[in-house]
Parts: sequence; C-alpha cells; structure tokens
Amino acid sequence: MVDQPLWEQIGSSFVRHYYQMFDSDRSQLGSIYSLPFTKIAHSITAQDHQPTPDNCILSMVVGQLKADEDPIMGFHQSFILKNINDSWVCTNDMFRLAIHNFG
Amino acid sequence: MVDQPLWEQIGSSFVRHYYQMFDSDRSQLGSIYSLPFTKIAHSITAQDHQPTPDNCILSMVVGQLKADEDPIMGFHQSFILKNINDSWVCTNDMFRLAIHNFG
Repeated sequence: MVDQPLWEQIGSSFVRHYYQMFDSDRSQLGSIYSLPFTKIAHSITAQDHQPTPDNCILSMVVGQLKADEDPIMGFHQSFILKNINDSWVCTNDMFRLAIHNFG
Repeated sequence: MVDQPLWEQIGSSFVRHYYQMFDSDRSQLGSIYSLPFTKIAHSITAQDHQPTPDNCILSMVVGQLKADEDPIMGFHQSFILKNINDSWVCTNDMFRLAIHNFG
C-alpha cells in the first residue's frame, strides 16, 4: 500500500478539522466567522490538494451546506496552507456559494 | 472610480485568456490538454482572486462547460499564478467537474 503524499495528508487533515470545527463550534475559528445563522452543516463532495513551488499546499473543496432552515446550497472553497515555524497555517481562504451554477 | 487591485487584474486576465484559448485553440495549451472531445465551450459563472503571502495570486473559478453533445456540466477550478522573470505563469491548476454536487 502506497502512503498518501504529504500534501494530501496535511490538506485533508486541515479540511476535516476546518469543517468539523465550523459545524460544531465555529467561535473557535475566530471573529471573522460570526455569521448570521444559528446552525450549519457541511457535507464535502470532493477535495483536491496540490503542493506549490513555494512549499505551500493548495486545497480545493466542493460540497453542500445547510444553514438553519434554508435549502441546501452548493459551495466551493479554496485554501492555501503555508508552513510557518513548523505549523501549517491557512494564509488564504476563498469561499463562494454555487447557488447559480446549474446547467 | 477605484482601480481594481493588481491581483484582480492579473487573475481575471489569466482566466479570460485561459478559457478563450481552451475553447478556441487548446493545442496552444500544450499536450496536457489533448482531451477526448472535439469541441468545448466554457461559461464562467464567478471568479475570485487573492494575493498570497508568497507574492502569488490564488484564483478560483466556477462555471459550466459543454463538451461535444454531452449535457452541460458544472466545473470548478483553482489556479496559482507566480511571477517568474517578470512573467505570470500558472504553477498549479486544479480542476474538477461538479457533476454530483446538487442539493
């Protein structure tokens, strides 16, 4: 059995941690996430991770979310993770609801 | 009128160029794009661009595409652009069809 590449391990760990925390106790994610809903649940459809030339990790996530009693909506999100002092930190976070992206 | 930030200008120029070339003459994009369809059309629904701490630009695109006579499919794609010798080059490209991402 071949081990996952490092960027897959780090990227998928970050994604798991991020959405678990977002859905269970988002106050931990800091004040930028004081969003106007009382409950939310994310479901990840797919995720991809790549190493970058600057030793960062680019992660792309697509999934669905349900906020309060709103209908389920698609979302997509990209992150850049950077190793600073032996810790992987998220330096970029790009989120968008995919509410209009239907064929 | 406020000018767009530099990363918005560079990122959106790259996205416009990329999909124009992909749809019109993708042989120019190199052999990695010798894909099994004869015609394709992309429609961009939304795009976002951010500068990164390593002076790159992170771009995220969501849209729809139609390949040959297949049904229209959603896609999402993330790029990292890096300035090397005064040129912006694409160092990372992450693409995924969003065919299963419906609520």
